Amino acid sequence: MNVLLFSKEARSGHCVRITEQKKIDHLIKILKLKTNDSIKLGEINGKLGTGTIIKLDACELSLKVNLEQAPPDALPCSVILALPRPQQLKRILVHLSALGVKDIHLIQSARVEKNYWQSPTLEAIHHYLIEGLEQAKDTVLPTVSLHKNYTDFINKDIHKILEHKQAWLAQPGAQQSIQRQSDASSQHVIVVGPEGGFIPEEVEHFKQLGCQTVSLGQRILKTETAIPVMLAALLKFP
Amino acid sequence: MNVLLFSKEARSGHCVRITEQKKIDHLIKILKLKTNDSIKLGEINGKLGTGTIIKLDACELSLKVNLEQAPPDALPCSVILALPRPQQLKRILVHLSALGVKDIHLIQSARVEKNYWQSPTLEAIHHYLIEGLEQAKDTVLPTVSLHKNYTDFINKDIHKILEHKQAWLAQPGAQQSIQRQSDASSQHVIVVGPEGGFIPEEVEHFKQLGCQTVSLGQRILKTETAIPVMLAALLKFP
Repeated sequence: MNVLLFSKEARSGHCVRITEQKKIDHLIKILKLKTNDSIKLGEINGKLGTGTIIKLDACELSLKVNLEQAPPDALPCSVILALPRPQQLKRILVHLSALGVKDIHLIQSARVEKNYWQSPTLEAIHHYLIEGLEQAKDTVLPTVSLHKNYTDFINKDIHKILEHKQAWLAQPGAQQSIQRQSDASSQHVIVVGPEGGFIPEEVEHFKQLGCQTVSLGQRILKTETAIPVMLAALLKFP
Repeated sequence: MNVLLFSKEARSGHCVRITEQKKIDHLIKILKLKTNDSIKLGEINGKLGTGTIIKLDACELSLKVNLEQAPPDALPCSVILALPRPQQLKRILVHLSALGVKDIHLIQSARVEKNYWQSPTLEAIHHYLIEGLEQAKDTVLPTVSLHKNYTDFINKDIHKILEHKQAWLAQPGAQQSIQRQSDASSQHVIVVGPEGGFIPEEVEHFKQLGCQTVSLGQRILKTETAIPVMLAALLKFP
Protein backbone atom coordinates (compact mmCIF):
# COMPACT_ATOMS: atom_id res chain seq x y z
CA MET A 1 0.00 0.00 0.00
CA ASN A 2 1.63 3.27 -1.13
CA VAL A 3 -1.29 5.51 -0.27
CA LEU A 4 -4.23 5.04 2.08
CA LEU A 5 -7.55 5.75 0.38
CA PHE A 6 -10.70 6.85 2.18
CA SER A 7 -14.20 7.64 0.96
CA LYS A 8 -15.62 11.13 0.80
CA GLU A 9 -17.97 10.25 3.67
CA ALA A 10 -15.00 9.63 5.99
CA ARG A 11 -13.86 13.25 5.74
CA SER A 12 -15.25 16.25 7.53
CA GLY A 13 -13.27 19.37 6.62
CA HIS A 14 -9.60 18.60 7.32
CA CYS A 15 -10.39 15.64 9.53
CA VAL A 16 -10.64 12.03 8.31
CA ARG A 17 -11.95 9.18 10.42
CA ILE A 18 -11.30 5.60 9.29
CA THR A 19 -13.00 2.64 10.92
CA GLU A 20 -12.22 -0.19 8.49
CA GLN A 21 -10.74 -2.85 10.74
CA LYS A 22 -8.44 -4.33 8.08
CA LYS A 23 -6.81 -0.98 7.32
CA ILE A 24 -6.35 -0.12 10.98
CA ASP A 25 -4.75 -3.52 11.65
CA HIS A 26 -2.41 -3.03 8.67
CA LEU A 27 -1.33 0.41 9.87
CA ILE A 28 -0.70 -0.74 13.42
CA LYS A 29 0.75 -4.21 12.86
CA ILE A 30 2.55 -3.98 9.54
CA LEU A 31 3.43 -0.30 9.17
CA LYS A 32 3.78 0.12 12.97
CA LEU A 33 2.37 3.65 12.89
CA LYS A 34 1.49 5.71 15.95
CA THR A 35 0.06 9.12 16.88
CA ASN A 36 1.77 12.09 15.17
CA ASP A 37 3.14 9.94 12.33
CA SER A 38 2.44 11.15 8.81
CA ILE A 39 1.17 9.02 5.93
CA LYS A 40 0.28 9.50 2.30
CA LEU A 41 -3.42 9.36 1.61
CA GLY A 42 -6.07 10.20 -0.89
CA GLU A 43 -9.80 10.66 -1.19
CA ILE A 44 -11.47 8.20 -3.55
CA ASN A 45 -12.17 10.12 -6.79
CA GLY A 46 -10.49 13.16 -5.20
CA LYS A 47 -7.02 14.49 -4.44
CA LEU A 48 -3.88 13.02 -2.91
CA GLY A 49 -1.98 14.43 0.04
CA THR A 50 -0.68 13.68 3.49
CA GLY A 51 -2.31 13.03 6.82
CA THR A 52 -1.04 13.31 10.37
CA ILE A 53 -2.39 10.73 12.77
CA ILE A 54 -4.33 12.39 15.62
CA LYS A 55 -5.72 9.23 17.14
CA LEU A 56 -4.97 5.56 16.49
CA ASP A 57 -6.37 2.71 18.51
CA ALA A 58 -7.66 -0.78 17.72
CA CYS A 59 -10.94 0.45 16.26
CA GLU A 60 -10.42 3.99 15.04
CA LEU A 61 -7.95 6.07 13.10
CA SER A 62 -8.32 9.85 12.94
CA LEU A 63 -6.11 12.06 10.82
CA LYS A 64 -5.68 15.72 10.03
CA VAL A 65 -5.29 15.86 6.27
CA ASN A 66 -3.95 18.16 3.63
CA LEU A 67 -5.04 17.21 0.10
CA GLU A 68 -3.49 19.20 -2.73
CA GLN A 69 -2.17 16.88 -5.38
CA ALA A 70 -4.17 15.76 -8.41
CA PRO A 71 -4.15 12.02 -9.16
CA PRO A 72 -2.09 10.78 -12.14
CA ASP A 73 -3.64 10.86 -15.60
CA ALA A 74 -5.76 7.91 -16.62
CA LEU A 75 -4.53 5.51 -19.29
CA PRO A 76 -6.48 6.41 -22.47
CA CYS A 77 -7.71 2.86 -22.89
CA SER A 78 -10.84 0.87 -22.11
CA VAL A 79 -10.64 -2.88 -21.61
CA ILE A 80 -13.15 -5.47 -22.79
CA LEU A 81 -12.38 -8.79 -21.21
CA ALA A 82 -14.08 -12.18 -21.39
CA LEU A 83 -14.79 -12.97 -17.74
CA PRO A 84 -11.76 -14.87 -16.41
CA ARG A 85 -11.85 -17.55 -13.72
CA PRO A 86 -12.30 -15.92 -10.29
CA GLN A 87 -8.72 -16.37 -9.01
CA GLN A 88 -7.35 -14.72 -12.15
CA LEU A 89 -10.01 -12.02 -12.11
CA LYS A 90 -8.86 -10.80 -8.68
CA ARG A 91 -5.30 -10.26 -9.86
CA ILE A 92 -6.40 -8.77 -13.19
CA LEU A 93 -8.58 -6.19 -11.44
CA VAL A 94 -5.63 -5.16 -9.25
CA HIS A 95 -3.36 -4.96 -12.35
CA LEU A 96 -5.87 -2.89 -14.36
CA SER A 97 -6.60 -0.53 -11.52
CA ALA A 98 -2.89 -0.03 -10.80
CA LEU A 99 -2.14 0.54 -14.48
CA GLY A 100 -4.64 3.40 -14.67
CA VAL A 101 -7.38 1.78 -16.75
CA LYS A 102 -10.69 3.47 -15.85
CA ASP A 103 -13.25 1.68 -17.98
CA ILE A 104 -13.50 -2.11 -17.71
CA HIS A 105 -16.11 -4.37 -19.30
CA LEU A 106 -16.38 -8.02 -18.31
CA ILE A 107 -18.30 -10.01 -20.88
CA GLN A 108 -19.73 -13.46 -21.49
CA SER A 109 -18.31 -15.41 -24.42
CA ALA A 110 -18.67 -18.97 -25.69
CA ARG A 111 -15.65 -20.26 -23.75
CA VAL A 112 -16.49 -18.51 -20.45
CA GLU A 113 -17.91 -20.96 -17.92
CA LYS A 114 -21.35 -19.68 -16.91
CA ASN A 115 -20.77 -20.35 -13.21
CA TYR A 116 -17.98 -17.74 -13.10
CA TRP A 117 -20.81 -15.18 -12.98
CA GLN A 118 -21.87 -16.58 -9.60
CA SER A 119 -18.43 -16.08 -8.06
CA PRO A 120 -18.22 -14.02 -4.83
CA THR A 121 -15.27 -12.24 -6.47
CA LEU A 122 -17.78 -10.23 -8.47
CA GLU A 123 -19.22 -8.89 -5.21
CA ALA A 124 -15.76 -7.79 -4.12
CA ILE A 125 -14.67 -5.93 -7.25
CA HIS A 126 -14.48 -2.64 -5.35
CA HIS A 127 -11.97 -4.15 -2.93
CA TYR A 128 -9.56 -5.23 -5.70
CA LEU A 129 -9.85 -1.90 -7.50
CA ILE A 130 -8.96 -0.04 -4.30
CA GLU A 131 -6.00 -2.37 -3.78
CA GLY A 132 -4.68 -1.42 -7.23
CA LEU A 133 -5.20 2.31 -6.65
CA GLU A 134 -3.48 2.15 -3.25
CA GLN A 135 -0.53 0.41 -4.92
CA ALA A 136 -0.28 2.93 -7.77
CA LYS A 137 -0.97 6.14 -5.78
CA ASP A 138 -4.12 6.92 -7.67
CA THR A 139 -7.58 7.87 -6.39
CA VAL A 140 -9.85 7.55 -9.41
CA LEU A 141 -11.96 4.43 -9.13
CA PRO A 142 -12.41 2.54 -12.41
CA THR A 143 -15.92 1.57 -13.45
CA VAL A 144 -16.51 -2.12 -14.05
CA SER A 145 -19.52 -3.13 -16.15
CA LEU A 146 -20.79 -6.69 -16.25
CA HIS A 147 -22.27 -7.93 -19.53
CA LYS A 148 -23.69 -11.38 -18.89
CA ASN A 149 -25.44 -11.56 -22.23
CA TYR A 150 -23.01 -11.72 -25.13
CA THR A 151 -25.64 -11.00 -27.79
CA ASP A 152 -26.91 -7.87 -26.04
CA PHE A 153 -23.34 -6.72 -25.59
CA ILE A 154 -22.26 -7.20 -29.19
CA ASN A 155 -25.46 -5.81 -30.67
CA LYS A 156 -25.92 -2.86 -28.38
CA ASP A 157 -23.62 -2.03 -25.47
CA ILE A 158 -20.35 -2.25 -27.36
CA HIS A 159 -21.15 0.56 -29.81
CA LYS A 160 -20.87 3.26 -27.17
CA ILE A 161 -17.61 1.77 -25.84
CA LEU A 162 -15.94 1.71 -29.26
CA GLU A 163 -17.13 5.18 -30.31
CA HIS A 164 -14.24 7.48 -31.36
CA LYS A 165 -11.69 4.89 -30.25
CA GLN A 166 -9.28 2.49 -31.90
CA ALA A 167 -9.94 -1.08 -30.85
CA TRP A 168 -7.42 -3.92 -30.72
CA LEU A 169 -8.25 -7.57 -30.29
CA ALA A 170 -5.45 -9.86 -29.08
CA GLN A 171 -5.47 -12.84 -31.41
CA PRO A 172 -2.66 -15.41 -31.60
CA GLY A 173 -1.59 -15.79 -35.20
CA ALA A 174 -2.95 -12.41 -36.35
CA GLN A 175 -1.00 -10.90 -39.26
CA GLN A 176 -0.48 -7.54 -37.62
CA SER A 177 1.72 -7.31 -34.55
CA ILE A 178 0.96 -4.81 -31.85
CA GLN A 179 2.59 -1.40 -32.38
CA ARG A 180 3.23 1.61 -30.19
CA GLN A 181 0.62 4.31 -30.91
CA SER A 182 2.36 7.64 -31.01
CA ASP A 183 -0.72 9.87 -31.07
CA ALA A 184 -1.08 10.59 -27.37
CA SER A 185 -4.53 12.10 -27.78
CA SER A 186 -6.20 9.04 -29.26
CA GLN A 187 -8.38 6.75 -27.20
CA HIS A 188 -8.10 2.98 -27.37
CA VAL A 189 -9.90 -0.19 -26.45
CA ILE A 190 -8.23 -3.55 -25.97
CA VAL A 191 -10.28 -6.72 -26.28
CA VAL A 192 -9.00 -9.89 -24.61
CA GLY A 193 -10.63 -13.29 -24.94
CA PRO A 194 -11.05 -16.12 -22.46
CA GLU A 195 -8.73 -19.09 -21.94
CA GLY A 196 -8.81 -20.87 -25.28
CA GLY A 197 -9.66 -17.63 -27.06
CA PHE A 198 -12.82 -16.23 -28.63
CA ILE A 199 -14.51 -18.62 -31.06
CA PRO A 200 -14.10 -17.65 -34.75
CA GLU A 201 -17.66 -16.32 -34.92
CA GLU A 202 -16.99 -13.96 -32.02
CA VAL A 203 -13.72 -12.77 -33.59
CA GLU A 204 -15.75 -12.02 -36.72
CA HIS A 205 -18.23 -9.92 -34.70
CA PHE A 206 -15.44 -7.80 -33.24
CA LYS A 207 -13.79 -7.38 -36.65
CA GLN A 208 -17.07 -6.26 -38.20
CA LEU A 209 -17.32 -3.66 -35.47
CA GLY A 210 -13.93 -2.26 -36.51
CA CYS A 211 -11.60 -4.03 -34.06
CA GLN A 212 -8.19 -4.82 -35.50
CA THR A 213 -6.72 -8.20 -34.60
CA VAL A 214 -3.16 -8.01 -33.35
CA SER A 215 -0.65 -10.67 -32.40
CA LEU A 216 1.49 -10.46 -29.25
CA GLY A 217 4.06 -12.80 -30.77
CA GLN A 218 4.29 -16.54 -31.11
CA ARG A 219 3.60 -17.26 -27.46
CA ILE A 220 0.18 -17.85 -25.97
CA LEU A 221 0.02 -15.66 -22.87
CA LYS A 222 -2.36 -15.91 -19.95
CA THR A 223 -4.83 -13.04 -19.73
CA GLU A 224 -3.06 -11.58 -16.71
CA THR A 225 0.24 -11.49 -18.61
CA ALA A 226 -1.30 -10.40 -21.91
CA ILE A 227 -3.07 -7.33 -20.50
CA PRO A 228 -0.03 -5.42 -19.19
CA VAL A 229 1.88 -6.51 -22.30
CA MET A 230 -0.79 -5.12 -24.64
CA LEU A 231 -1.17 -1.87 -22.72
CA ALA A 232 2.58 -1.26 -22.54
CA ALA A 233 3.13 -2.22 -26.17
CA LEU A 234 0.39 0.13 -27.30
CA LEU A 235 0.71 3.17 -25.04
CA LYS A 236 3.26 5.37 -23.35
CA PHE A 237 2.63 5.32 -19.64
CA PRO A 238 1.62 8.72 -18.24
CA MET B 1 -1.60 -25.90 -20.54
CA ASN B 2 -1.19 -25.41 -24.31
CA VAL B 3 1.56 -27.98 -24.76
CA LEU B 4 2.62 -30.94 -22.64
CA LEU B 5 6.34 -30.92 -21.89
CA PHE B 6 8.40 -33.99 -21.10
CA SER B 7 12.07 -34.47 -20.27
CA LYS B 8 14.57 -36.02 -22.65
CA GLU B 9 14.76 -39.08 -20.40
CA ALA B 10 11.05 -39.80 -20.95
CA ARG B 11 11.59 -40.37 -24.67
CA SER B 12 12.95 -43.42 -26.39
CA GLY B 13 12.92 -42.93 -30.17
CA HIS B 14 9.38 -41.96 -31.15
CA CYS B 15 7.88 -43.18 -27.89
CA VAL B 16 7.34 -41.02 -24.80
CA ARG B 17 6.33 -42.39 -21.43
CA ILE B 18 5.04 -39.98 -18.78
CA THR B 19 4.54 -41.05 -15.17
CA GLU B 20 4.04 -37.69 -13.42
CA GLN B 21 0.83 -38.21 -11.51
CA LYS B 22 -0.30 -34.58 -11.67
CA LYS B 23 -0.01 -34.41 -15.46
CA ILE B 24 -1.81 -37.73 -15.93
CA ASP B 25 -4.64 -36.59 -13.66
CA HIS B 26 -4.91 -33.32 -15.59
CA LEU B 27 -5.10 -35.12 -18.95
CA ILE B 28 -7.71 -37.59 -17.77
CA LYS B 29 -9.87 -35.42 -15.51
CA ILE B 30 -9.65 -31.94 -17.03
CA LEU B 31 -8.83 -32.53 -20.68
CA LYS B 32 -10.77 -35.85 -20.71
CA LEU B 33 -8.32 -37.46 -23.11
CA LYS B 34 -8.30 -41.11 -24.08
CA THR B 35 -6.38 -43.58 -26.24
CA ASN B 36 -5.81 -42.46 -29.86
CA ASP B 37 -6.36 -38.79 -29.03
CA SER B 38 -3.67 -36.38 -30.22
CA ILE B 39 -2.08 -33.64 -28.14
CA LYS B 40 0.54 -30.96 -28.62
CA LEU B 41 3.78 -31.67 -26.82
CA GLY B 42 7.41 -30.73 -26.63
CA GLU B 43 10.70 -32.01 -25.28
CA ILE B 44 12.24 -29.75 -22.66
CA ASN B 45 15.04 -27.82 -24.42
CA GLY B 46 14.08 -29.60 -27.65
CA LYS B 47 11.43 -29.44 -30.37
CA LEU B 48 7.65 -29.13 -30.39
CA GLY B 49 5.24 -31.46 -32.13
CA THR B 50 2.27 -33.73 -31.64
CA GLY B 51 1.76 -37.01 -29.85
CA THR B 52 -0.85 -39.72 -30.22
CA ILE B 53 -1.86 -41.46 -27.02
CA ILE B 54 -1.07 -45.19 -27.16
CA LYS B 55 -1.81 -45.96 -23.55
CA LEU B 56 -3.46 -43.92 -20.81
CA ASP B 57 -4.34 -45.24 -17.39
CA ALA B 58 -4.22 -43.86 -13.85
CA CYS B 59 -0.44 -44.16 -13.55
CA GLU B 60 1.03 -44.11 -17.03
CA LEU B 61 0.74 -42.22 -20.29
CA SER B 62 2.48 -43.47 -23.41
CA LEU B 63 2.55 -41.56 -26.66
CA LYS B 64 3.91 -41.92 -30.16
CA VAL B 65 5.44 -38.55 -30.94
CA ASN B 66 6.47 -36.53 -33.95
CA LEU B 67 8.67 -33.54 -33.07
CA GLU B 68 9.51 -31.20 -35.92
CA GLN B 69 8.86 -27.63 -34.90
CA ALA B 70 11.50 -25.35 -33.36
CA PRO B 71 10.47 -23.46 -30.21
CA PRO B 72 9.81 -19.70 -30.52
CA ASP B 73 12.73 -17.28 -30.30
CA ALA B 74 13.83 -16.21 -26.86
CA LEU B 75 13.25 -12.64 -25.72
CA PRO B 76 16.65 -10.88 -25.98
CA CYS B 77 16.53 -9.79 -22.36
CA SER B 78 17.93 -10.96 -19.04
CA VAL B 79 16.15 -10.07 -15.82
CA ILE B 80 17.77 -9.10 -12.52
CA LEU B 81 15.18 -9.08 -9.79
CA ALA B 82 15.37 -8.42 -6.06
CA LEU B 83 13.91 -11.58 -4.54
CA PRO B 84 10.15 -10.99 -4.19
CA ARG B 85 7.96 -12.48 -1.47
CA PRO B 86 7.27 -16.16 -2.22
CA GLN B 87 3.65 -15.80 -3.36
CA GLN B 88 4.65 -13.12 -5.86
CA LEU B 89 7.75 -15.04 -6.93
CA LYS B 90 5.65 -18.00 -8.08
CA ARG B 91 3.57 -15.86 -10.41
CA ILE B 92 6.56 -13.86 -11.61
CA LEU B 93 8.42 -17.04 -12.59
CA VAL B 94 5.40 -18.21 -14.61
CA HIS B 95 5.15 -14.76 -16.28
CA LEU B 96 8.87 -14.62 -17.12
CA SER B 97 8.97 -18.13 -18.46
CA ALA B 98 5.85 -17.57 -20.58
CA LEU B 99 7.22 -14.28 -21.91
CA GLY B 100 10.36 -15.98 -23.23
CA VAL B 101 12.95 -14.65 -20.79
CA LYS B 102 15.77 -17.20 -20.55
CA ASP B 103 18.18 -15.70 -18.05
CA ILE B 104 16.85 -14.77 -14.61
CA HIS B 105 18.86 -13.58 -11.61
CA LEU B 106 17.26 -13.32 -8.18
CA ILE B 107 19.31 -11.13 -5.86
CA GLN B 108 19.46 -9.98 -2.26
CA SER B 109 19.03 -6.26 -1.63
CA ALA B 110 18.60 -4.10 1.47
CA ARG B 111 14.79 -4.25 1.39
CA VAL B 112 14.53 -8.00 0.71
CA GLU B 113 13.55 -9.91 3.84
CA LYS B 114 16.29 -12.47 4.50
CA ASN B 115 13.82 -15.25 5.30
CA TYR B 116 12.50 -15.20 1.72
CA TRP B 117 15.64 -17.19 0.86
CA GLN B 118 14.35 -20.06 3.02
CA SER B 119 11.04 -20.30 1.16
CA PRO B 120 10.09 -23.72 -0.32
CA THR B 121 9.16 -21.80 -3.50
CA LEU B 122 12.88 -21.64 -4.30
CA GLU B 123 12.96 -25.46 -4.34
CA ALA B 124 10.07 -25.50 -6.81
CA ILE B 125 11.38 -22.99 -9.36
CA HIS B 126 11.53 -25.68 -12.05
CA HIS B 127 7.81 -26.35 -11.62
CA TYR B 128 6.82 -22.70 -12.21
CA LEU B 129 9.13 -22.35 -15.19
CA ILE B 130 7.58 -25.43 -16.80
CA GLU B 131 4.10 -24.00 -16.13
CA GLY B 132 5.07 -20.84 -18.03
CA LEU B 133 6.56 -22.79 -20.95
CA GLU B 134 3.49 -25.05 -21.18
CA GLN B 135 1.32 -21.95 -21.31
CA ALA B 136 3.39 -20.22 -24.00
CA LYS B 137 4.17 -23.27 -26.19
CA ASP B 138 7.88 -23.04 -25.61
CA THR B 139 10.37 -25.76 -24.61
CA VAL B 140 13.52 -23.86 -23.65
CA LEU B 141 13.92 -23.83 -19.89
CA PRO B 142 15.16 -20.51 -18.46
CA THR B 143 18.10 -20.57 -16.09
CA VAL B 144 17.50 -19.04 -12.69
CA SER B 145 20.55 -17.99 -10.64
CA LEU B 146 20.29 -17.18 -6.94
CA HIS B 147 22.58 -14.46 -5.60
CA LYS B 148 22.14 -14.40 -1.83
CA ASN B 149 25.07 -12.07 -1.26
CA TYR B 150 24.47 -8.61 -2.68
CA THR B 151 28.10 -7.49 -2.40
CA ASP B 152 29.43 -10.51 -4.27
CA PHE B 153 26.79 -9.98 -6.93
CA ILE B 154 27.46 -6.31 -7.50
CA ASN B 155 31.25 -6.64 -7.37
CA LYS B 156 31.61 -9.80 -9.41
CA ASP B 157 28.68 -11.76 -10.85
CA ILE B 158 26.88 -8.85 -12.47
CA HIS B 159 29.71 -7.94 -14.85
CA LYS B 160 29.23 -11.03 -16.98
CA ILE B 161 25.45 -10.50 -17.05
CA LEU B 162 25.72 -6.89 -18.27
CA GLU B 163 28.44 -7.58 -20.85
CA HIS B 164 27.48 -6.37 -24.35
CA LYS B 165 23.97 -5.54 -23.19
CA GLN B 166 21.95 -2.41 -22.47
CA ALA B 167 20.67 -2.38 -18.91
CA TRP B 168 17.55 -0.62 -17.64
CA LEU B 169 16.68 -0.10 -14.00
CA ALA B 170 13.01 0.65 -13.19
CA GLN B 171 13.06 3.66 -10.91
CA PRO B 172 9.97 5.71 -10.05
CA GLY B 173 10.70 9.36 -10.70
CA ALA B 174 13.56 8.72 -13.15
CA GLN B 175 13.96 11.49 -15.77
CA GLN B 176 13.98 9.12 -18.72
CA SER B 177 10.86 7.20 -19.56
CA ILE B 178 11.08 3.73 -21.03
CA GLN B 179 11.26 3.65 -24.84
CA ARG B 180 10.81 0.99 -27.47
CA GLN B 181 14.24 -0.24 -28.65
CA SER B 182 14.12 -0.62 -32.38
CA ASP B 183 17.44 -2.42 -32.87
CA ALA B 184 16.21 -6.01 -32.84
CA SER B 185 19.72 -7.43 -32.55
CA SER B 186 20.64 -5.75 -29.29
CA GLN B 187 20.54 -7.58 -25.99
CA HIS B 188 19.01 -6.08 -22.88
CA VAL B 189 18.86 -6.49 -19.13
CA ILE B 190 16.06 -5.17 -16.96
CA VAL B 191 16.68 -4.60 -13.27
CA VAL B 192 13.71 -4.52 -10.90
CA GLY B 193 13.92 -3.68 -7.21
CA PRO B 194 12.04 -5.06 -4.21
CA GLU B 195 8.84 -3.67 -2.68
CA GLY B 196 9.84 -0.20 -1.53
CA GLY B 197 12.57 -0.06 -4.17
CA PHE B 198 16.35 -0.32 -4.10
CA ILE B 199 17.97 1.96 -1.52
CA PRO B 200 19.77 5.01 -3.04
CA GLU B 201 23.18 3.40 -2.52
CA GLU B 202 22.13 0.33 -4.52
CA VAL B 203 20.71 2.50 -7.32
CA GLU B 204 24.10 4.24 -7.41
CA HIS B 205 25.88 0.87 -7.78
CA PHE B 206 23.73 -0.08 -10.76
CA LYS B 207 24.19 3.34 -12.36
CA GLN B 208 27.97 3.12 -11.97
CA LEU B 209 27.82 -0.22 -13.77
CA GLY B 210 26.12 1.47 -16.73
CA CYS B 211 22.46 0.78 -15.99
CA GLN B 212 20.12 3.55 -17.11
CA THR B 213 17.29 4.43 -14.76
CA VAL B 214 13.91 4.59 -16.45
CA SER B 215 10.48 5.56 -15.23
CA LEU B 216 7.35 3.54 -16.00
CA GLY B 217 5.17 6.60 -15.42
CA GLN B 218 3.78 8.22 -12.31
CA ARG B 219 2.32 5.05 -10.90
CA ILE B 220 4.11 2.69 -8.55
CA LEU B 221 3.56 -0.79 -9.96
CA LYS B 222 3.97 -4.13 -8.23
CA THR B 223 6.89 -6.18 -9.51
CA GLU B 224 4.58 -8.64 -11.23
CA THR B 225 2.87 -5.81 -13.13
CA ALA B 226 6.08 -3.87 -13.78
CA ILE B 227 7.95 -6.77 -15.43
CA PRO B 228 5.58 -7.43 -18.36
CA VAL B 229 5.15 -3.66 -18.74
CA MET B 230 8.91 -3.08 -18.98
CA LEU B 231 9.50 -5.96 -21.37
CA ALA B 232 6.63 -4.95 -23.66
CA ALA B 233 7.58 -1.27 -23.57
CA LEU B 234 11.18 -2.08 -24.45
CA LEU B 235 10.96 -4.94 -26.94
CA LYS B 236 8.92 -6.21 -29.83
CA PHE B 237 7.63 -9.65 -28.98
CA PRO B 238 8.99 -12.38 -31.25
